[in-house]
Amino acid sequence: MPTTFLYKSDPVRGRQWAEVFRRRAPDIDFRIWPDIGDPAHVRFLAAWEPPQDLGALFPNLELLFSSGAGVDQFDLAALPAALPVVRMVEPGIVRGMVEYVTHAVLGLHRDMPQYRRQQHEGQWRPLPVRPAGERRVGVLGLGSLGQAVLAQLVCLGFDCAGWSRSLHSMEGVQCHAGEEGLEPFLARTDILVCLLPLTESTRGFLDARLFSMLPGGASLVHVGRGPQLVNADLLDALADGQIGDAVLDVTEPEPLPPAHAFWRHPRIQLTPHIASMTQPLSAAQAVLDNLRRFEAGHPMIGLVDRARGY
Amino acid sequence: MPTTFLYKSDPVRGRQWAEVFRRRAPDIDFRIWPDIGDPAHVRFLAAWEPPQDLGALFPNLELLFSSGAGVDQFDLAALPAALPVVRMVEPGIVRGMVEYVTHAVLGLHRDMPQYRRQQHEGQWRPLPVRPAGERRVGVLGLGSLGQAVLAQLVCLGFDCAGWSRSLHSMEGVQCHAGEEGLEPFLARTDILVCLLPLTESTRGFLDARLFSMLPGGASLVHVGRGPQLVNADLLDALADGQIGDAVLDVTEPEPLPPAHAFWRHPRIQLTPHIASMTQPLSAAQAVLDNLRRFEAGHPMIGLVDRARGY
Repeated sequence: MPTTFLYKSDPVRGRQWAEVFRRRAPDIDFRIWPDIGDPAHVRFLAAWEPPQDLGALFPNLELLFSSGAGVDQFDLAALPAALPVVRMVEPGIVRGMVEYVTHAVLGLHRDMPQYRRQQHEGQWRPLPVRPAGERRVGVLGLGSLGQAVLAQLVCLGFDCAGWSRSLHSMEGVQCHAGEEGLEPFLARTDILVCLLPLTESTRGFLDARLFSMLPGGASLVHVGRGPQLVNADLLDALADGQIGDAVLDVTEPEPLPPAHAFWRHPRIQLTPHIASMTQPLSAAQAVLDNLRRFEAGHPMIGLVDRARGY
Repeated sequence: MPTTFLYKSDPVRGRQWAEVFRRRAPDIDFRIWPDIGDPAHVRFLAAWEPPQDLGALFPNLELLFSSGAGVDQFDLAALPAALPVVRMVEPGIVRGMVEYVTHAVLGLHRDMPQYRRQQHEGQWRPLPVRPAGERRVGVLGLGSLGQAVLAQLVCLGFDCAGWSRSLHSMEGVQCHAGEEGLEPFLARTDILVCLLPLTESTRGFLDARLFSMLPGGASLVHVGRGPQLVNADLLDALADGQIGDAVLDVTEPEPLPPAHAFWRHPRIQLTPHIASMTQPLSAAQAVLDNLRRFEAGHPMIGLVDRARGY
């Protein structure tokens, strides 16, 4: 029986995937939705939004790949119970995130928001420079993105810590874990970077209670998911100085409506969810490599623990 | 005869130097200007602006150290001809410059100036992401700062080149040299970083002719010295799109007068000469290490070639 790999996401990117598969996996019949061919031949699906009733539609489906970072856009409960779901882990996503967070952290570290305000007011006023070794950066979430970001920040000499659900260990990074590890982690963090996956337990995680555990005037770089941030709590924390500056790449909702307070806030830098984007060529390659691991009976990279939600 | 090390620069920083000398070199009589003691005992001087008539004032002076990066503030012709002049090469300056340039290059690479304009206009519009490997960064000046900056940019995956007066060689960097190497270097540069020393041949170096050799829409990061940039030529190049965005840490004059066109230009990011500042503790340590090299008859780091001017 022929094997179909079905792609259901942005078709322009799909054509770049097709080229990688044509070159590297001529044994696989690569198709772009809605050109599904014989549904019984579809063993693999890469999608941002999977079609409804997946099990009935593709009786021989063996794997579902997310076509972008994260799987929070999937309704995991509605998917066939035994279907393995695989996150996108590819070097393009990682590189983009390292670039974005490094830029944001260096900018906050070197007082760039303040210098922008001074430029606007025509003020030439140098501020004291603090060595990176005295700037405490903390990363929430120690998956492949969090770890890559921390490796770069350690290399720049920052005093780094990380927090995750279960305890990790990383060269040069003070690692904290679980609910009891959150307060000591936050208490030593001048610049907080959120790279958590969106799950029921991280929804609304960045709230007034969490902000109150940071040193006064700490900064936030939010590159997780919009619903993790309680918008009103951020505005309050900025107003009373508990948070100094915020760099937000994700918001709830997206796009942010035109009248939203974040747009014109002098202490918020906003980007439209561009920190990291899947690069079609490296993504297709990473998915294909994962598929070969699966066929050889080896563990896949980014296999989702459906009980945990990521 | 006792040995006096005389410090003539910011006195607050001077007290930090004094502490390093007291701890690490109790044999040396460290003094802060104007408390010079017996002028005949002054063998070493660290200064930003040396006193006039140096030779007559300190007949036994053996070395002049610059207390900051660069020696362009010295009138070399007015100094005793045989007096060795030493630039400040210390890890604090290098780290600060790597931070500033990395931030500026990542910001230009990831379209941050455009996103700031879009935020101001309330526009949520993602722009395509180009991989760092397709972004060509070029650094003018391959001294200790240029080399450290390039090492970090190579590590982030940028396509890097460097230009200097004499040919250098650096892992992962396309090196160009001399007048004939300038055009091919500029023709392949999307983001130009100026880290040249200020000399008679680099004064006015960043002018219309140089900008015209860049690909249209290239960006400029200027962290050399203000007089290297022809201000009117930059404004013209920004107006006709030859230069896309400019990040300026140095200007002529400094501070920039309140009415200057750079302050409010939408495509110029301005900082008040803060890219890199000498860190007193590491600077004093570096100067002391250099002094020990001198006393042991070893070559010093940062010894100025007075004919070349840096």
